[in-house]
Amino acid sequence: MTERPGQPSLRGPKTSQRLAHVLAQPILSGTVPPGERLPNEQAMMALYGAGRPTVREALRLLEARGLITLKTGPGGGPIVRRPPKDSLSEALSLVLQVEGASFADVTDARMALEPVLARRAAERIDDARIAELEDSVAQLRANRGGHEVFVTQNQRFHGLVAEAAHSVVLDVFVSTLKAIADGVRVGVQYSARKQSAVADAHQAVIDAFKARDPDRAEAAMREHLAEAERYWRHRYPELMTRPVQWTY
Amino acid sequence: MTERPGQPSLRGPKTSQRLAHVLAQPILSGTVPPGERLPNEQAMMALYGAGRPTVREALRLLEARGLITLKTGPGGGPIVRRPPKDSLSEALSLVLQVEGASFADVTDARMALEPVLARRAAERIDDARIAELEDSVAQLRANRGGHEVFVTQNQRFHGLVAEAAHSVVLDVFVSTLKAIADGVRVGVQYSARKQSAVADAHQAVIDAFKARDPDRAEAAMREHLAEAERYWRHRYPELMTRPVQWTY
Repeated sequence: MTERPGQPSLRGPKTSQRLAHVLAQPILSGTVPPGERLPNEQAMMALYGAGRPTVREALRLLEARGLITLKTGPGGGPIVRRPPKDSLSEALSLVLQVEGASFADVTDARMALEPVLARRAAERIDDARIAELEDSVAQLRANRGGHEVFVTQNQRFHGLVAEAAHSVVLDVFVSTLKAIADGVRVGVQYSARKQSAVADAHQAVIDAFKARDPDRAEAAMREHLAEAERYWRHRYPELMTRPVQWTY
Repeated sequence: MTERPGQPSLRGPKTSQRLAHVLAQPILSGTVPPGERLPNEQAMMALYGAGRPTVREALRLLEARGLITLKTGPGGGPIVRRPPKDSLSEALSLVLQVEGASFADVTDARMALEPVLARRAAERIDDARIAELEDSVAQLRANRGGHEVFVTQNQRFHGLVAEAAHSVVLDVFVSTLKAIADGVRVGVQYSARKQSAVADAHQAVIDAFKARDPDRAEAAMREHLAEAERYWRHRYPELMTRPVQWTY
């Protein structure tokens, strides 16, 4: 990992990546838990025999990957964090911009994935999770049109279904897609009447879970998303053609 | 974007990210095509009023995202590239390691996604693409057991199906999953007899495409993947529990 000071930055381009990988191991293995502070820049330079630019670049790479936050100011430094499930969204939004994907393409992928998650959830869900889902619907119904509660409970419902499916990879994908392009997040508004229809749709999925009926759960989720998509297309026709852009 | 030289690196932690985003725009919009050289470090420092560490960090971030390669040595520097569809694999493998995903979880996700791609391909595929798929099967059949040709034609078949589906997001996901955990890539060997069975399975998918039958295409792809998974579980029982690890 040693490098000469003042060495041109484009020599040995992988040194900082290798250091980032070394630094990541105890974080990924859980040896260094979230919230813990890593050694500061000076200490890392001594520890790894690396120059300041290499250490800084390695820390930026870990920050970009969501494994640390870099706190500024006195007492600052690298703090370990657990990357959230949607931490892929930066990288995915970049690839999708390159591929020319639109909001409609992201919606299309959610419509392929979420019914599968509902199917699997129906095969695996326990009563405690069903109770949580019913609580989410109850809060939607009590809400009477407020935007914040609707956003929160809507995300909670879909998040609970994804978790109940125990399909970690699909869960990561759907979380990421929602972070990139979700109607509610981009400002789609739902009237009280429309919110009530969403509560009904969520209840239909829950009823299929209670019946442990995978086919019915899949179909209910598919219909729910198809209805949402129709609403977005009708009320926000320009939304669907909006290109995905790299968000960071 | 201006910063004082010698400023501590952990102040203004986002400066290099902002510069990376500025530098990315002409690449993402296609104004600067792949293969083109960006200004060197010195020129960028002048252009953007940024210090050397900021420019270096910004370039590393773009490199990590697959938007440039950094060529070393005299005449080197940042060269624009088009990130490949599987360039998400680094970021995804990191998140999946954090989430504790195994090879089986990745296989499980492929089994959810690829039948959907086959269904959509059946709705949209044209004759030219079908001819390419048939050529791929013909090359598999002529191969008589060689590993390289099998790997190439197997990937070609699945890649063609994904493209024919015109589901850019799902295509990116499946490409990424194959880059992270594919039986053939991790060294699973197929006997000549087994390869012949794979060719039959591919042909069954193609026959469903020719009949423009989405249900049959989805079912044929599902059965093909289920058979592959059974083979992997039987021959390489330890493979399925292998944890996904951050690959960079």
